[in-house]
Amino acid sequence: MREPDPRRGGLSRRGLLVAGGVASAGAATALGAESLRRGTAAPPPDPPVPAAHGGRTEPFHGARQAGVGTVPQAFASFVALDLRPGAGPEAVRRLLRVLSADAADLARGTAPVGDQEPWLAEHPARLSVTFGFGPRLLGLLAPDRVPPWLRPLPAFSIDRLEERWSGGDLLLQLCADDRLALSHAQRVLLKGARSSATVRWVQDGFRHTVGAVPEGTTMRNLFGQVDGTADARPGSEEFERVVYGGADTAPWIEDGTALVVRRIRMDLDAWDEVDTPAREDAVGRRLADGAPLTGTAEHDEPDLAATSPLGFPVIAPYAHVRRARPADPVERIHRRVYNYDLPGAGGAGDAGMIFASYQADPDRQFVPIQRRLDELDMLNAWTTPVGSAVFAVPPGCAEDGFVGDVLLRA
Amino acid sequence: MREPDPRRGGLSRRGLLVAGGVASAGAATALGAESLRRGTAAPPPDPPVPAAHGGRTEPFHGARQAGVGTVPQAFASFVALDLRPGAGPEAVRRLLRVLSADAADLARGTAPVGDQEPWLAEHPARLSVTFGFGPRLLGLLAPDRVPPWLRPLPAFSIDRLEERWSGGDLLLQLCADDRLALSHAQRVLLKGARSSATVRWVQDGFRHTVGAVPEGTTMRNLFGQVDGTADARPGSEEFERVVYGGADTAPWIEDGTALVVRRIRMDLDAWDEVDTPAREDAVGRRLADGAPLTGTAEHDEPDLAATSPLGFPVIAPYAHVRRARPADPVERIHRRVYNYDLPGAGGAGDAGMIFASYQADPDRQFVPIQRRLDELDMLNAWTTPVGSAVFAVPPGCAEDGFVGDVLLRA
Repeated sequence: MREPDPRRGGLSRRGLLVAGGVASAGAATALGAESLRRGTAAPPPDPPVPAAHGGRTEPFHGARQAGVGTVPQAFASFVALDLRPGAGPEAVRRLLRVLSADAADLARGTAPVGDQEPWLAEHPARLSVTFGFGPRLLGLLAPDRVPPWLRPLPAFSIDRLEERWSGGDLLLQLCADDRLALSHAQRVLLKGARSSATVRWVQDGFRHTVGAVPEGTTMRNLFGQVDGTADARPGSEEFERVVYGGADTAPWIEDGTALVVRRIRMDLDAWDEVDTPAREDAVGRRLADGAPLTGTAEHDEPDLAATSPLGFPVIAPYAHVRRARPADPVERIHRRVYNYDLPGAGGAGDAGMIFASYQADPDRQFVPIQRRLDELDMLNAWTTPVGSAVFAVPPGCAEDGFVGDVLLRA
Repeated sequence: MREPDPRRGGLSRRGLLVAGGVASAGAATALGAESLRRGTAAPPPDPPVPAAHGGRTEPFHGARQAGVGTVPQAFASFVALDLRPGAGPEAVRRLLRVLSADAADLARGTAPVGDQEPWLAEHPARLSVTFGFGPRLLGLLAPDRVPPWLRPLPAFSIDRLEERWSGGDLLLQLCADDRLALSHAQRVLLKGARSSATVRWVQDGFRHTVGAVPEGTTMRNLFGQVDGTADARPGSEEFERVVYGGADTAPWIEDGTALVVRRIRMDLDAWDEVDTPAREDAVGRRLADGAPLTGTAEHDEPDLAATSPLGFPVIAPYAHVRRARPADPVERIHRRVYNYDLPGAGGAGDAGMIFASYQADPDRQFVPIQRRLDELDMLNAWTTPVGSAVFAVPPGCAEDGFVGDVLLRA
């Protein structure tokens, strides 16, 4: 699954082209090491962290798109585009072709044609670009393939949706372990899209940086909660069923899935007013380690029937973990969640999470859970959905294809 | 310079306190490893990056503040606060005492008293918090110590300054290698400041993530330029003179310095219209490796006298590298620059750099350079300063003191 070092070949070829044959990227890389040896750069205060992860790649091409079962990268940018008025099927195909070609280059650490800052493409750091189609785009591309769930989610009473964080014709989920690689990839892709689409919204999120905590540690959100414990492991049978369909759910297309993006504003100030026992009661898990209140370790199954000596349920009727549990086994989703934190002047800060979930059928898998949480979930006291969008995620493509091409052949 | 592992002691003590004695942070950490062993977390696609850097620390206490000569961390947040109306000297001292205590705890990976999400403080990832005093705050604390340069910079013709990115009574420069650690530290510090100060502006920036490129590699900005080649190496004689004063410049106080923060908007779209030779002509350096047009490697001295066979200067009269060169040896600064990138809907994106520079005397060191660049610098065609602020950076403090206490004793 590992590409050969992307800094050979592509980039140094490019470096030679752009710099008129004077210097190669190899020389630039050697320079960094050289300046360390010569002592012209500051000496590191600790043993250096190996420069391991900038060259890591996630393959863009394949039967399925990257960025779904991919181990979550440290940074994500969810970019929703709207087609320009008058864009027709041909414009859509051209857009997808351009974006697929650029995304494939960027993912392997090669600067796409027309990339004016090719050096910023040199370290992809597991960059993945995942395409999601909104109803309008899919309707233009393959009108008879639009799944019934591809429309705004039903209204929930807790929603305070803002137009500026909702909807969209085309979603690009960009993820990478390096913030600069992400920024550059976003810019290149937006340039490629410009003639046929405009930016509707962009949501930037983060988790722990690579190497800050052991790989495989479940992330924490800004409430301090261990977040994502119950998620199915990519590659597992359960993950396959949840994301790509199984006996009881069918995906809209083979190797396709669906993406729900919700922007959840979190009132950190109000949350801070609540003491730890009350917070743990609201969640149904211990904050320190994410263990259910009926267990001792993060991955213990919550015992929803357990009662206290006084006869009260240990996990309260309104606890998030109870309300989020599937009533029917089909009600499972695969979450890929990121934090956002945008402090502003005069207390006008905005923080929360970009809740992204993958599932074969949002109507059957996501909506029932959200309905239950809408009816009753103690966490609603401190959280507000302010954005919402649903996208159909097509299969991946071959090296000579583009994302969505399979819809034209079918 | 290395603290003992901060996750022992402080945090697990705290974990015990907060979680009511049920679990310790040690257990939480072990859990991550445990879930990997059990295969309940996704298998890493490549050899795992060692979880080395989350526990790294930069000492908060000392004769000088951290975050000046510190090897630049991957992320920075520059937070400018304004004192609430009516705040007097006692309120200022209390504010500085609270912030110093919290910053010291956070830097060593210990959750400060009142931190409601102590687990987010567990991995400081070289967190540093650097205090800068604006004229009003320093005037309240030590009116006879206000240096003459502590006022807005002179107006430059290229400036298009916006109030929302300029000025401030107290600057906190937060830096860390983990974005989540930074977010948490910012939140804790702002909570501590809330009773006596309000947020004036926040500027978030990034460089390459730790480990994405070899340590010691000079950063690139969003124009793709190698940025910071000419900076003095912390610890060097030159660095000492530039930042903390020497024979020809005196700092406002021993072990003190000055911080200039300028927000420079960069027109990436217009820059992309320019071809590589024209860009290199504008900068005076090659884009591929940062070498001056008269040299072959990044750290070669530019030869400003060199001419082409036709008699024209190789480095143009308007080239940035020529205009930024000191006319007088005192005109040197120490830069600590971060990129920002805030794409917005409908092309309303905002990208550029947070230009932060340290120098003993901004009037003598920074202003002459900026004046020269204001008069003539080809890069002005694509860059616009939109924010500007100057702060007096006091010495560090001892474990029982607070930043600024030395001013009360002097």
